[in-house]
Amino acid sequence: MEVPALVERVRNGDVRAIARAISLVENAAAELRPIMAGLAPGTGRARIVGLTGSPGVGKSTSSNALVAALRARGRTVAVLAVDPSSPFSGGALLGDRIRMQEHALDGGVFIRSMASRGHLGGLSWATPHALRVLDAGGFDVILVETVGVGQAEVDVAGHADTTLVLVAPGMGDSVQAAKAGVLEVADIFVVNKADRDGAHVTVRELRQMTAQADRGPDAWRPPIVSTVAAKSEGVEELLDRLDEHDAHLRASGELDRRRRARARAEVEAIALRALQDRIGGIGGHADLDELADAVVAGRSDPYAAADALLAALSEQQGSEQQG
Amino acid sequence: MEVPALVERVRNGDVRAIARAISLVENAAAELRPIMAGLAPGTGRARIVGLTGSPGVGKSTSSNALVAALRARGRTVAVLAVDPSSPFSGGALLGDRIRMQEHALDGGVFIRSMASRGHLGGLSWATPHALRVLDAGGFDVILVETVGVGQAEVDVAGHADTTLVLVAPGMGDSVQAAKAGVLEVADIFVVNKADRDGAHVTVRELRQMTAQADRGPDAWRPPIVSTVAAKSEGVEELLDRLDEHDAHLRASGELDRRRRARARAEVEAIALRALQDRIGGIGGHADLDELADAVVAGRSDPYAAADALLAALSEQQGSEQQG
Repeated sequence: MEVPALVERVRNGDVRAIARAISLVENAAAELRPIMAGLAPGTGRARIVGLTGSPGVGKSTSSNALVAALRARGRTVAVLAVDPSSPFSGGALLGDRIRMQEHALDGGVFIRSMASRGHLGGLSWATPHALRVLDAGGFDVILVETVGVGQAEVDVAGHADTTLVLVAPGMGDSVQAAKAGVLEVADIFVVNKADRDGAHVTVRELRQMTAQADRGPDAWRPPIVSTVAAKSEGVEELLDRLDEHDAHLRASGELDRRRRARARAEVEAIALRALQDRIGGIGGHADLDELADAVVAGRSDPYAAADALLAALSEQQGSEQQG
Repeated sequence: MEVPALVERVRNGDVRAIARAISLVENAAAELRPIMAGLAPGTGRARIVGLTGSPGVGKSTSSNALVAALRARGRTVAVLAVDPSSPFSGGALLGDRIRMQEHALDGGVFIRSMASRGHLGGLSWATPHALRVLDAGGFDVILVETVGVGQAEVDVAGHADTTLVLVAPGMGDSVQAAKAGVLEVADIFVVNKADRDGAHVTVRELRQMTAQADRGPDAWRPPIVSTVAAKSEGVEELLDRLDEHDAHLRASGELDRRRRARARAEVEAIALRALQDRIGGIGGHADLDELADAVVAGRSDPYAAADALLAALSEQQGSEQQG
């Protein structure tokens, strides 16, 4: 399919075109640039909701329940399940198929998983590309679900307008959340499996933690929602809190700030990648090998060698501009 | 202390100067460049041995036993224990102190831990800096011990001349090793806790895996050494295998290749960091904010914006060169 036709079909919400476009952009295919350029005017409409939490808290169950509830309110939903910890996409793909079946007949739902390996630059590179395609595809809400732990949980917040942090009773999650820096990125806390023993303890711990955080008078205070996602309990309340956060983001100007920061990070990453390629190109011209030899022999140190490399890069750019 | 005096003392093997220099270079202090330049002529002498394996296989016990055995052969040893998975250095530091006590009166042993957080760019940045200081400090052998799992285990090989992969019986490690890509980086396999049930199964599995790997006729075939590090059993044999691998590296030219690749990666990383700082500098001049706004509004896409950013960077460099 030619790029203009593909772009047209993505913007009309054609799920096969959307799937194809995501594959092309996340693998940095030759079509990457024209696709991104073609889709740009249609972006900025979707609400991007990040969903994170330790393994076992019920992220995919919660995501499924959210999808059903959003559909009941007439909203279209895309789910992007990212797994930064696994080199294999098998597990995610299996979960994918099971979930696909549940929503198979619903054209208003699109589900996609991405695993870490095989993507240039990893998920921090692939995720914003996929999100732009889904956004242009016209979905009202995009759920970005991360399967990772630690830094991955925090990173997902960088891609989202609103970040849900899921915890479950008796897993020591609330304490863990505070440790990993997840507390700072949570816009809404979800205590899932709230019918279990100890749920009220978890809620109380989270309440204490959020109360301690130093916020301004007009700041958003992350609400704590109790759910039993497997029974769809509490999911309506969660949607209400999501809408409230959306309204807060728009009224306060925070939505613009977050999206600008995200665009800035995207542009910087792409520019840096291009510079990296240019350095690699110089390496191909043998300068870098000579510099590395000098470092190995102790005739130079890595910093002096890097200076020489950058000087060669500038010279090359200068001669390209003149030529 | 002035940099020339510090450099002089590092090169004389003064452990306090070495510790101070590592702190300065890993934190990218102002003294970083002159220190790296001053130390360069004294580098390239140390043998760098990487030591990796899943938690619980006995890495620090093995490392301790290796230190004792190397000292008995009259070699000086530095241990760099890196923990990429932990945001906290407490655990590593505790282990550090315990180990320090054991070798406290021995000036031929230096032990240092590094945790992930608080280092610009993480351990992949800090590790080579610390290694260069230890190398210049005159240690015969530097053990780089990683506490991490997954990618971290593979990464350590990038810093070492020889990589030891530790496994233990009954942990499913051998299968895990194959999965995580650790098999490819192992120069020597160490089956530790070899007095446990199932040790022969682990050895057999590893033998099968290493036999399957496709290697040339003159290639190094990773030997499998059984040890009980807690009782220092098998450690002499391990040292013999290490010496054999060292001889192989030198005879085959592989040592030069590995060290050149390492220097190349170091130089590239430093150059890239400098370019990143320049992009950040442009951001400070408001160009990047405007570009990000255009992306958010859908007037531009991240690739077109990155092109504009790079053009601004080139222009700036051009005017700096003229000015």
